[in-house]
Amino acid sequence: MADPVARRNETAPLEASNKDLQTIKAERTMIGAELLMETAAERGVEVCFANPGTTEMPMVEALDGAPKIRPILGLFEGVCTGAADGYGRMAEKPAMALLHLGPGLANGLCNLHNARRAHTPMLVVVGEHATWHRPYDPPLAMDIEALAGTLNGWRRTTSRAQNLGVDVSDALAAARRGQVATLIVPFDLQTKPVVAKPAPEAPSPSKTVDEQAIANAARLLKRGKKAVIILGGRSLSREGQMKAACIKAACGCDLIAETFPARMERGVGMPHIDRVPYVPAVAQNLLDSYEAVVLAGAPAPVTFFGYKDTPPSLLSAAQEVVALGEGPDALAELGRLAEALGTPSAPPKELLTRAGEIPTPTGALTRDKVCALLAAMQPEGAVVMDEGNTTSQSYHYFATLAKPFTLLTLTGGAIGQGAPCATGAAVACPSRKVIDFQADGSALYTVQALWTQAKEKLDVVTLICSNQSYDILKFEASQLGTRQLGPTVKRLTDLSGVDWVKLAEGLGVPSVAVATAEELSSELSQALAEKGPRLIEMELC
Amino acid sequence: MADPVARRNETAPLEASNKDLQTIKAERTMIGAELLMETAAERGVEVCFANPGTTEMPMVEALDGAPKIRPILGLFEGVCTGAADGYGRMAEKPAMALLHLGPGLANGLCNLHNARRAHTPMLVVVGEHATWHRPYDPPLAMDIEALAGTLNGWRRTTSRAQNLGVDVSDALAAARRGQVATLIVPFDLQTKPVVAKPAPEAPSPSKTVDEQAIANAARLLKRGKKAVIILGGRSLSREGQMKAACIKAACGCDLIAETFPARMERGVGMPHIDRVPYVPAVAQNLLDSYEAVVLAGAPAPVTFFGYKDTPPSLLSAAQEVVALGEGPDALAELGRLAEALGTPSAPPKELLTRAGEIPTPTGALTRDKVCALLAAMQPEGAVVMDEGNTTSQSYHYFATLAKPFTLLTLTGGAIGQGAPCATGAAVACPSRKVIDFQADGSALYTVQALWTQAKEKLDVVTLICSNQSYDILKFEASQLGTRQLGPTVKRLTDLSGVDWVKLAEGLGVPSVAVATAEELSSELSQALAEKGPRLIEMELC
Repeated sequence: MADPVARRNETAPLEASNKDLQTIKAERTMIGAELLMETAAERGVEVCFANPGTTEMPMVEALDGAPKIRPILGLFEGVCTGAADGYGRMAEKPAMALLHLGPGLANGLCNLHNARRAHTPMLVVVGEHATWHRPYDPPLAMDIEALAGTLNGWRRTTSRAQNLGVDVSDALAAARRGQVATLIVPFDLQTKPVVAKPAPEAPSPSKTVDEQAIANAARLLKRGKKAVIILGGRSLSREGQMKAACIKAACGCDLIAETFPARMERGVGMPHIDRVPYVPAVAQNLLDSYEAVVLAGAPAPVTFFGYKDTPPSLLSAAQEVVALGEGPDALAELGRLAEALGTPSAPPKELLTRAGEIPTPTGALTRDKVCALLAAMQPEGAVVMDEGNTTSQSYHYFATLAKPFTLLTLTGGAIGQGAPCATGAAVACPSRKVIDFQADGSALYTVQALWTQAKEKLDVVTLICSNQSYDILKFEASQLGTRQLGPTVKRLTDLSGVDWVKLAEGLGVPSVAVATAEELSSELSQALAEKGPRLIEMELC
Repeated sequence: MADPVARRNETAPLEASNKDLQTIKAERTMIGAELLMETAAERGVEVCFANPGTTEMPMVEALDGAPKIRPILGLFEGVCTGAADGYGRMAEKPAMALLHLGPGLANGLCNLHNARRAHTPMLVVVGEHATWHRPYDPPLAMDIEALAGTLNGWRRTTSRAQNLGVDVSDALAAARRGQVATLIVPFDLQTKPVVAKPAPEAPSPSKTVDEQAIANAARLLKRGKKAVIILGGRSLSREGQMKAACIKAACGCDLIAETFPARMERGVGMPHIDRVPYVPAVAQNLLDSYEAVVLAGAPAPVTFFGYKDTPPSLLSAAQEVVALGEGPDALAELGRLAEALGTPSAPPKELLTRAGEIPTPTGALTRDKVCALLAAMQPEGAVVMDEGNTTSQSYHYFATLAKPFTLLTLTGGAIGQGAPCATGAAVACPSRKVIDFQADGSALYTVQALWTQAKEKLDVVTLICSNQSYDILKFEASQLGTRQLGPTVKRLTDLSGVDWVKLAEGLGVPSVAVATAEELSSELSQALAEKGPRLIEMELC
């Protein structure tokens, strides 16, 4: 009879990789997983955000032999990948996210998407079924390569155990170019004996500074047309913004930041730089006032969604546009542009924001009061993760008066990034206060991050904007022309019934709810004075 | 200068689709989204588990005009897809899961993977950016087709608004064949005017009963060799198990169920059918005792992971194997096999399990005590979702003595299925008590499901197996040959610090913790007597 059923052949020997792991270790022979972890440690990986499973177990065990890498557990993969994103943005080097098979990668994919849009350096390691097991399509089998492919970054499935050193070295070199690098490692290759030799350092990729684009940009800015430089990526570092301010001083152009920067230094003493507005008609009006546009580390601005009356591109065919690169060389390119323009070496003081008083709000909490209070109270050197969505709009106005700090934003629009990203930022910067300015609906996507903050005693204050609603959807519905919300829209945007104090305490984070500006001021003051995670539910009216 | 930057052409008119939605509706012209929802309602869709965003807003609004479809919000997409899976298993027809762009699909992918392995009928509708917006690569853009492709099911991106009726009709026909059907709908096609004509009913696919395989299986079973039928899918319905018991009566073969059935009727009065053991050596020993194997709706059994000493396939080349189909026709095929064997029309009573006493446990809670208590106390007609992992092992032994009930299990190994699946089962079966027997680590993946249970007042009792550990990983490490857990394994399997009572109450579900069998008995008794969601944290020693 026909027999389409896969069965084992009794005579085929199992592979050498099935040799007892303890025996291999007793012989002090290195196995593939150890080569991978030792190479990663040698290449500077210091943290592994992990939610591993059986197919990653040899790599987990190998972490015992790589004590330079700190393993940190996340109770959901989106926490691990978001934390690796936050870490990468702040440390400016890759963390490892260690994930279990296709499902683990799928659960972590949204925050990898955000990291991809942020050009965050990150190494993702995914265990795959053993090469001799995968063809049997076991229950957890999934197309891992296809999932990794959606990230448009470096990816490879290891084909030989001995390659694991080179593979992880190549992955880290690719990650350092500002991308998510995904290395897929079959289980049996992790356990195979290998020769413990160091991988050759992956060659540093050549700089991609585009001299022609820089010359074009310099010519454009010198021509005296009304011009704006849209800054993004590494151009929004302190150094980048100072260089941009020097260019402004020399050419009289305006400066503006991309709408959702991965990382932007802000506060008193920094150049005054607004962001491209989120609301498309407002953004288009603003940008249409320029005859010339230079993109410095930012993509060409487009609307977030497709709206009637506003075309997707916020730049028009009538404008002259020069695009410098978006990658990790954006800062170098901005520097070359400043040189080409012969700008001063430091910006004039009048281009930098000066200290000013933020009025102290009182009474029932509104969005604007929260924004003002936070900007007024946040300490120097704070890292503020903004996933406040509809609530945090005016924060960016007040934040110019805040003490110098670092702003992180939601780069890829996939909500649920704030708490994980704040978690990773706190791991990268243990001496800085991290504040997660956090919309409630978004926070619920990856609420498990609070547990990691508690477990690792991370210095994160989470400010929950508790409006119990997907307000952004109501806003978007109005943008789309809906004048009155129907019952289904109301029903599907109603998040009422969440008690954030209980929820966060259930995950180990001390919490409190506040309803007035006075209460928020008192509780935030206390949370900022102490070390360790805290959550404040801000009941907005 | 060269200009690689995409910009709008001021002279190109915006599409007709940008006509004001209110105007279109005022004219009482139907739009694409309305055609989609009305067709779905006509074709029997009664529930939409949704976490939509801007690109799905016209479809959300169209639900107002399709009152037969009940919209239910999930606060994370994995809740929506898992709920649609639970609904599909119990209702035996597709629910709709409505998701936002690539990130929404990515977040829901793991429970779609589980649904795919369960052959659950399900319709997934994903909004995509407008066709004229997508080429600009806005922040949320992701390769949705690639994500859907990992599910190996029906998928289509709608190309014309007028096709939306036919597209959703085709998707539903495909879903009813036991798969996840994914329809991707660009935003602009949702808002375009269409003619409101009913889609032709998609032709019923022809039955795929394989008469040759049935004849082969009949011949094999009649030959008197030691034989087993491995039952899976629809063969584990009440009718399927009864037919299988008739075959057993006629041929003397044994019966066994696949390890992780999507849905299996169980309890007193059902044939006694064990499951293929999870532990590979035990499974192999058992299956090796048979000379002949018939697969009835089940895939050929393979080990869950690749282990030393146990090859992937649990069937050997020495065995004769006949595979009937795995799809929705499994029940029909089993019936044809019974006919071919001329079996009695009802199984003899001695093949059916009889009522018996389950000893009442006392004292500190252990795994086995929990399993015994649940089996003893669960009411007739209960739906029990088992994602108890290491805790629920012996439940399947005691469950043969339980009152007749329906068992659902984790089919694809992607944890975080229990609470969402129980949620969907409760929507499908409002008059039955749903019990989610739930490992704590797995529950944390999709804990947001509790909120939906509270919001929709669903009759679900969640029993949290609180061992504060990924015990399954410790077990798997031992299977892989690790004799002593290293510090990193210990650290990455330690979930301590979760207070389930606070966590669940934070999401609106009344909760209590118990530490002894007496307490569990008392609290479970009360939870079973009342309607509505409850959670009991079982502190295991």
